[in-house]
Amino acid sequence: MANDPRSERTRVKREPQRGQYGSRVIHEILDAGMIAHVGFVSADGQPLVIPMLYVRDGDRLLIHGSSASRLLNTAGEEVDLCVTVTIADGLVVARSAFNSSLNYRSVVVIGKARAIHDGPAKWDALRALTDGLIPGRWDDCRQPTELELKATWILSMPVDEASAKIRTGGPNDDDEDLALGYWAGVIPFVKDVLPPVPHDALRADIELPEYLRRWKKDV
Amino acid sequence: MANDPRSERTRVKREPQRGQYGSRVIHEILDAGMIAHVGFVSADGQPLVIPMLYVRDGDRLLIHGSSASRLLNTAGEEVDLCVTVTIADGLVVARSAFNSSLNYRSVVVIGKARAIHDGPAKWDALRALTDGLIPGRWDDCRQPTELELKATWILSMPVDEASAKIRTGGPNDDDEDLALGYWAGVIPFVKDVLPPVPHDALRADIELPEYLRRWKKDV
Repeated sequence: MANDPRSERTRVKREPQRGQYGSRVIHEILDAGMIAHVGFVSADGQPLVIPMLYVRDGDRLLIHGSSASRLLNTAGEEVDLCVTVTIADGLVVARSAFNSSLNYRSVVVIGKARAIHDGPAKWDALRALTDGLIPGRWDDCRQPTELELKATWILSMPVDEASAKIRTGGPNDDDEDLALGYWAGVIPFVKDVLPPVPHDALRADIELPEYLRRWKKDV
Repeated sequence: MANDPRSERTRVKREPQRGQYGSRVIHEILDAGMIAHVGFVSADGQPLVIPMLYVRDGDRLLIHGSSASRLLNTAGEEVDLCVTVTIADGLVVARSAFNSSLNYRSVVVIGKARAIHDGPAKWDALRALTDGLIPGRWDDCRQPTELELKATWILSMPVDEASAKIRTGGPNDDDEDLALGYWAGVIPFVKDVLPPVPHDALRADIELPEYLRRWKKDV
């Protein structure tokens, strides 16, 4: 991945002080999330945005989902995508309606994606996707059959044209508003999970594995 | 709004059993969320997806954000959008990698959006947006000046071509996988907030209002 993956298309044009361009920041945000909003243009020119599971695998995104087949049905081998990941961190309540805002981290990746068709490459991608979403799961699950592998669609997309945008901290009220009689501050969002709920038909001798006990993503 | 806002473009093509088309379901999901991923096509044909705050106001979406100006700079008065809202509810851990999934609620709205320019209409839209995001806030904040109102971009888009997709429940493992020795179940996501953090410069006599104490969105 280029050290500075900014481009005219991904440059943060509004509020550029919130733009962050380093690969490390971009990778951290991509690794914290698991759901991407994937945008593409349909054959008749309509923009469409579909949520899909993804992981970052080195310098590429692996994007999963049956919806992916719809993309490729309309676009052939290679498809122009915009993959956006947003993690909301808190509601910023300013004294003025105008300065109220949201704390968040987001990344926009632009480029051409391809479906992975080659069997061994697809197997590796599905392993990377599974272990990226649930670290430790690949070696502790029933791995795909040949038919399942064929029925699985994984898109691969380089992370070489990307930008991040981040807002943190409290409200930026105008100085003359500070003395007003309205509450101001931040309501932080909790990103957590409840204890895992076992399947009804789970074998009685199977305990929750440690890697699921500690599972965590910012969703 | 039409009773059945499905169309060929928004019909759920993959896994149609997850498709939900009623207005009530669509509205409930839109009302639970607050961040939309807004997709549009740039002048050079590139799909772009940007996160924006929104509320549903009756039969329209009001979409807020400085990013909106970028849309309108490239597209003139009316712009084709796809507005997608996704709320992730839990990680579905199946015995097989292939059947692992995500519980979620999502809505896709397609149509043409317009910026609201007219002063009184914009004022009403900003009030609806503010009170939609934080019920009770509009009457307890410093309302916008004329300059702020001019600097605010709000897009309005009808919710008349929309579909919802929902997944709930446990893993759908194949019958022959049920006896396998792998844990299976759901890890539910927590959607909650921490206690509000007052701004450093908050006047000492201002207490947290009740409407902020009970603030809640599925983000």
